[in-house]
Amino acid sequence: MKEDVKFTLFHHPLSSASRYVRLLLNEYQIAAHLIKEYEWQKRKEFLALNLAGTVPVLLTNETPVCGALVIYEFLDETQGPLKNHSRLFPQNPLARAHVRHLSEWFLIKFENDITRHLVKERVYKQEGGAAPDANIIRKAIANIRPHMEYLNWLSTNHNWLGGASLSYADFAAAATVSVLDYMGELQWPLYPMAKEWYARLKSRPSFRSILSDSIHEITPPIHYTNLDF
Amino acid sequence: MKEDVKFTLFHHPLSSASRYVRLLLNEYQIAAHLIKEYEWQKRKEFLALNLAGTVPVLLTNETPVCGALVIYEFLDETQGPLKNHSRLFPQNPLARAHVRHLSEWFLIKFENDITRHLVKERVYKQEGGAAPDANIIRKAIANIRPHMEYLNWLSTNHNWLGGASLSYADFAAAATVSVLDYMGELQWPLYPMAKEWYARLKSRPSFRSILSDSIHEITPPIHYTNLDF
Repeated sequence: MKEDVKFTLFHHPLSSASRYVRLLLNEYQIAAHLIKEYEWQKRKEFLALNLAGTVPVLLTNETPVCGALVIYEFLDETQGPLKNHSRLFPQNPLARAHVRHLSEWFLIKFENDITRHLVKERVYKQEGGAAPDANIIRKAIANIRPHMEYLNWLSTNHNWLGGASLSYADFAAAATVSVLDYMGELQWPLYPMAKEWYARLKSRPSFRSILSDSIHEITPPIHYTNLDF
Repeated sequence: MKEDVKFTLFHHPLSSASRYVRLLLNEYQIAAHLIKEYEWQKRKEFLALNLAGTVPVLLTNETPVCGALVIYEFLDETQGPLKNHSRLFPQNPLARAHVRHLSEWFLIKFENDITRHLVKERVYKQEGGAAPDANIIRKAIANIRPHMEYLNWLSTNHNWLGGASLSYADFAAAATVSVLDYMGELQWPLYPMAKEWYARLKSRPSFRSILSDSIHEITPPIHYTNLDF
């Protein structure tokens, strides 16, 4: 019983986790139908797919795969082995654990410390007609520098964040960084090695559709789509 | 170059994520040296192992594997295949995605909505000499019922949370539930199917060392260690 598997991705353009999955689908050249989901609307049909009510959700035929951490393991298990040398996990289990740790760091910790709050206060709240909380924004912005310095340090040690080869960790970090960059929050001259690393990722064909996204609440800075920024 | 791998686990007795990893080590019969770590002390040597400063961290020889989600994938990859029928993942990738989703639900969402706050306010703050915040405690307690009703519903549908066989999802949920139960927060008569499921898990030999843990700030209710509660 072989049939053509169809993927549908429920996402939001400024959700780092959604961008991460879109990058992976592009890298693995998997076509997917994209549906924009606004979490704050708590759509019944969407809650039936994911009780947590969060994007991204990947529908494969009729079955939902919920959350970026679960989706990338699923994509790796089902698509990774077919990719041979372009598989986004290293061979060694301890090296894979390191890549998983970094992916979680950027998709969960960086997100909870910074990006989630900025997007919520500046975009989600505006869509709902509420005023942003300046205090929350200030705290989130104060977290940017230590996180970006860590990213800069990681980029100094190796070509790619997880070591010698490109991995899921690079896309997890780049997805989150791309959202902050869209919001004009990154002073790139402070993080020269992270900038070089990001320029290399941003030039990949998988990044094109991400960079062309826009939302009406915020216009990105001029350098945002520039590959040589 | 084969050598006897030695595991050391940095944990806290009331950290759900730590209990989860201890349960898995017990299930897979892997001996590990346990070290109690108090996150709030921000010990330099511990931060060098995990920059996030959180337990659990599993040291395998000299290499740290950080965080419960990363540790269970590592244990599954390195130990799971040796376990044949007692492997804690189903065969099908979509079924594995479901188990991963539930594991994340209990280790991250349930934890962030409820357990983390109760442990922080009642235990961590007391150790540091600070007063608990009654408002935070009230909010966390209000989240218990919907979460436990979901667990009850999951236990009604199948023998085990992830489907027909015992999986990582059961241990993730049981670890978190065991912490709440220790704190006397569970009105078991409200959740009869979850209670049956938990009784089955609690009776497993892997649970023994967890149930015998105690901390001086809180004494568990009488039923806590009772296998027929």
